[in-house]
Amino acid sequence: MNALFIGPNKSGKSRLALEYTLKIAQTKPYFIATGIAVDEEMKKKIELHKKERKNSFITIEEPLFIYEKLQSIKEYKLLDCLSFWVSNMLLSNKENEIENTAHNISQIQNCVFVINEVGACVIPDNELARKFAHYNGIVAQIIAKKCDEVFLCSAGISIKIK
Amino acid sequence: MNALFIGPNKSGKSRLALEYTLKIAQTKPYFIATGIAVDEEMKKKIELHKKERKNSFITIEEPLFIYEKLQSIKEYKLLDCLSFWVSNMLLSNKENEIENTAHNISQIQNCVFVINEVGACVIPDNELARKFAHYNGIVAQIIAKKCDEVFLCSAGISIKIK
Amino acid sequence: MNALFIGPNKSGKSRLALEYTLKIAQTKPYFIATGIAVDEEMKKKIELHKKERKNSFITIEEPLFIYEKLQSIKEYKLLDCLSFWVSNMLLSNKENEIENTAHNISQIQNCVFVINEVGACVIPDNELARKFAHYNGIVAQIIAKKCDEVFLCSAGISIKIK
Repeated sequence: MNALFIGPNKSGKSRLALEYTLKIAQTKPYFIATGIAVDEEMKKKIELHKKERKNSFITIEEPLFIYEKLQSIKEYKLLDCLSFWVSNMLLSNKENEIENTAHNISQIQNCVFVINEVGACVIPDNELARKFAHYNGIVAQIIAKKCDEVFLCSAGISIKIK
Repeated sequence: MNALFIGPNKSGKSRLALEYTLKIAQTKPYFIATGIAVDEEMKKKIELHKKERKNSFITIEEPLFIYEKLQSIKEYKLLDCLSFWVSNMLLSNKENEIENTAHNISQIQNCVFVINEVGACVIPDNELARKFAHYNGIVAQIIAKKCDEVFLCSAGISIKIK
Repeated sequence: MNALFIGPNKSGKSRLALEYTLKIAQTKPYFIATGIAVDEEMKKKIELHKKERKNSFITIEEPLFIYEKLQSIKEYKLLDCLSFWVSNMLLSNKENEIENTAHNISQIQNCVFVINEVGACVIPDNELARKFAHYNGIVAQIIAKKCDEVFLCSAGISIKIK
């Protein structure tokens, strides 16, 4: 059983994905964190998310090689989030590997994915921002296609769209 | 009966919330406007919204102290919008009161709320914009949790998500 | 039968609208392209979209006078996208004609429209970006009002909202 939670920043998608994973996992699930604390703001956000998870997950940090990590775990795993991974890949000059890796991870079983919706605005001036939005959208589509369930999140509510 | 209308800028959420409020209110409802005309553009927008309301609402302007205002009115009231209020609170150095006030107003009865969806884009460079998006999302979640009905708006159409 | 596909950038709306049009059209449909290749990035995007369509559509490029074009075609036609047209109109100083033309094209039969959701972010600093978002939202509402079906797109999935 695979699922994707997509939604704007602060739409509650991480919390909703946590609750969903805990409901379907029979054993303690894994939490694959792709975000890296590059500054104070990010550090605070990561701490907040850690608190929300308490001890209900086994946390692993992996900014880049998520396919290898996910594949090595048989238990249920929550990957939060694909947008950070796309951003990390672009900043590590791994642009050409994004689509292939997305196809690979879409095949892994017992995985819950979280991704940001980032394209509902005027096209950004910044080239990197445009590239990020482009790949983020492609990855969302690749993963959603193979998921059994997809949820759009808004105001802390998840709407089942697949 | 409480309801929240959330949607992107120009998704028709204000008009949809007006129609909804007029349908459920037994007596003339109140309209609590949080927007302040700081420039010509804003002035035009406020005038346009006033025209849409005609005389069907009793309009009160309140940029900051919305809990006190909402609490003092027994009739149905439409608050448009929470995003302006969040922005006003930040600009008045009242950041620390946002969450508490949101919890308080979420308890008030017979209230229809409007809020913008502002997080479906690449994270902004600007720190104030990031802070605004953060609190706007938190407020949306706090209010939605206590509302009987929540509507996501797009292209002038409201989708009931709760 | 008229339909509108609305969604963020890279939400799959163009592909979903293509599939939809091919399903309902009895004869070879027309594809009205409003985008102009002003740079390499845009050229690539247009080429990609052309490949997706293969020979299943008769393609016509029309950046501005879409009402005249759409009206002259009796067969099913897919207009992709209204957002480019709004942008072209603004850049050609035809701002005052946008709303009227939108009302006119909303009356044309056998038409499938595509439009970007661009308002789910913090209000942009840039005046032209704000103006674009304003008219884009107005056009989406005008077209959606007359369409038999409206679809919100996310992660390559279309959600029927009307």
